[in-house]
Amino acid sequence: MDKPRQGGFESGAVTSAPNKCLVTGAAGFIGSHLVDRLLERGQTVVGLDNLKLGTLSNLARARENPRFRFFQADVNDTAAVSRLLAAESASGPFAMAWHLAANSDIRAGVVDPDVDLRDTFLTTHNLLKALREHRILRVAFASTSAIYGVHPAKLTEDLGPLFPISNYGAMKLASEAALSAALESFLERVWIFRFPNVVGSRATHGAIYDFARKLKANPAELEVLGDGTQEKPYFHVADLVEAMLFIVERASEPLNYYNIGTADSVTSVRQMAEAVVREMAPGAKIRYTGGSKGWVGDVPRFSYSVEKLRRLGWSPRLTSDQAVERAVREIVQETQAG
Amino acid sequence: MDKPRQGGFESGAVTSAPNKCLVTGAAGFIGSHLVDRLLERGQTVVGLDNLKLGTLSNLARARENPRFRFFQADVNDTAAVSRLLAAESASGPFAMAWHLAANSDIRAGVVDPDVDLRDTFLTTHNLLKALREHRILRVAFASTSAIYGVHPAKLTEDLGPLFPISNYGAMKLASEAALSAALESFLERVWIFRFPNVVGSRATHGAIYDFARKLKANPAELEVLGDGTQEKPYFHVADLVEAMLFIVERASEPLNYYNIGTADSVTSVRQMAEAVVREMAPGAKIRYTGGSKGWVGDVPRFSYSVEKLRRLGWSPRLTSDQAVERAVREIVQETQAG
Repeated sequence: MDKPRQGGFESGAVTSAPNKCLVTGAAGFIGSHLVDRLLERGQTVVGLDNLKLGTLSNLARARENPRFRFFQADVNDTAAVSRLLAAESASGPFAMAWHLAANSDIRAGVVDPDVDLRDTFLTTHNLLKALREHRILRVAFASTSAIYGVHPAKLTEDLGPLFPISNYGAMKLASEAALSAALESFLERVWIFRFPNVVGSRATHGAIYDFARKLKANPAELEVLGDGTQEKPYFHVADLVEAMLFIVERASEPLNYYNIGTADSVTSVRQMAEAVVREMAPGAKIRYTGGSKGWVGDVPRFSYSVEKLRRLGWSPRLTSDQAVERAVREIVQETQAG
Repeated sequence: MDKPRQGGFESGAVTSAPNKCLVTGAAGFIGSHLVDRLLERGQTVVGLDNLKLGTLSNLARARENPRFRFFQADVNDTAAVSRLLAAESASGPFAMAWHLAANSDIRAGVVDPDVDLRDTFLTTHNLLKALREHRILRVAFASTSAIYGVHPAKLTEDLGPLFPISNYGAMKLASEAALSAALESFLERVWIFRFPNVVGSRATHGAIYDFARKLKANPAELEVLGDGTQEKPYFHVADLVEAMLFIVERASEPLNYYNIGTADSVTSVRQMAEAVVREMAPGAKIRYTGGSKGWVGDVPRFSYSVEKLRRLGWSPRLTSDQAVERAVREIVQETQAG
């Protein structure tokens, strides 16, 4: 990590991180936070988004930065992406791509498998073809804990078998597999992040988001699917983006794959519902529909191992409860402003 | 397993297996052998094939059977498949589907990832939509040892992580994942067979097939990719089909997944080359190109566990060497006749 000084001054702006990158899903929940941090770190960022789930308002800050360029394009529009990468490569090669474009609404993919086929998997397939054509040989990919399906064991990165129970999980696993095959044929390095349940500002779905919207519509009562005892580890998007950057800087195998999350720290649906009520409509009644699962494809309870990431040298700042608390404040504020 | 006799006579034709089934890839190498055996066992079989790799000649025997109906259609032609299943369901419901349609040429998928996307994965995705629509709730699926990628460990069914090194392996893993998600949302039972390297009559590719064609073109010399030391377990298609039928009859979990293969029995490329030369052109010179791998995406050496299948009660009749010997005779005969 030690870098020799040159000419007696700190070269603070110089970084070992690559300097120009592509971000797909740049206007989305996680993508837009990533773009902000990459720009803060001095990088040049070309962002793509079809603005289906993402919004330009998420990129309000980024778009004031001259090192950011945004293009509204679907990754599956291969002709548009190819033209764009050709034009952008002309002013200097891309060091890497961050592939975050995906359907992030698991429930939508349960109703219609074509959603995750197109937005979660074909985006990966088509991006890989574009990267091959334009010789962008390093990719960081947003995968998910949903690839593991339902396991009695603690979810470690090397766990098998992999039988996801949602099309979202299936198409993320398909994407990992396609990246792995591409590594054999042309890629130089792949980073796979398996995301936990991520919360924070700019979220477009999830329990906190749903609760805040329901309470805005009816401040007297909040209906919650399930019995409220479902527990999951929640992770704040700010921690998530730091972990992603850390992994890309430190992990240098051809194929690097890491769970990102909090260790052994979980938050129940009940806690989330109560926090949203407290923040937004104190005194509102919470009504649970009952049952142990909210909807088909939801993994009700699991324990996530983040030892591998810890061994690499990174630990989250927030526990699951702290992440939820911060996210509730942020999301309630956005919901009330929206 | 004991079935009470009725009326004092053996009801040999009665079977616990479902009576009417759909077979995709019915005219292919393995599909056509499966069709033959299903018909022999008294089943009614509706076969689909786009005849891209499959041939009508593979179905010559089946097509003489009144319980077989063949339709030339691509599984990805969703409108045609839907019409066909509606018409066929009218004369009695399908008990299950056998999904074997796929690109079986791994090398073609390395050159162009769209081949395995379309023929290996989208066929599964689209078939699942058709099965949902027509309420066919049981599926047997031809997966592959290639989903495991390169592992130092013995390949057991519960192994992880899963990082295939070919698009073929990636799109088979994607198919397994899609089946797993469909099981959560509408399927009742899934059987997944992870095939080894399968040899035998009607093969459309593979080392024996390549060697036989090369020797037919030039009986004086046989060029072999690699150094000939690559070893794999080879399995005869007749054993394979028996194992598939056995698993479907005996394994009754919602999700059943089995490696099919020979235990600890492998055959080298050199043995295969020598067997083809012996059978077809005794005295021909064998020239090895050298190197440890034949081509990108090939898994050079692995050891396959078939303990799970053995515990279910099934063992192969042929060793890898015996399977290769029988296949060489069959394929050389077909090549000389062709």
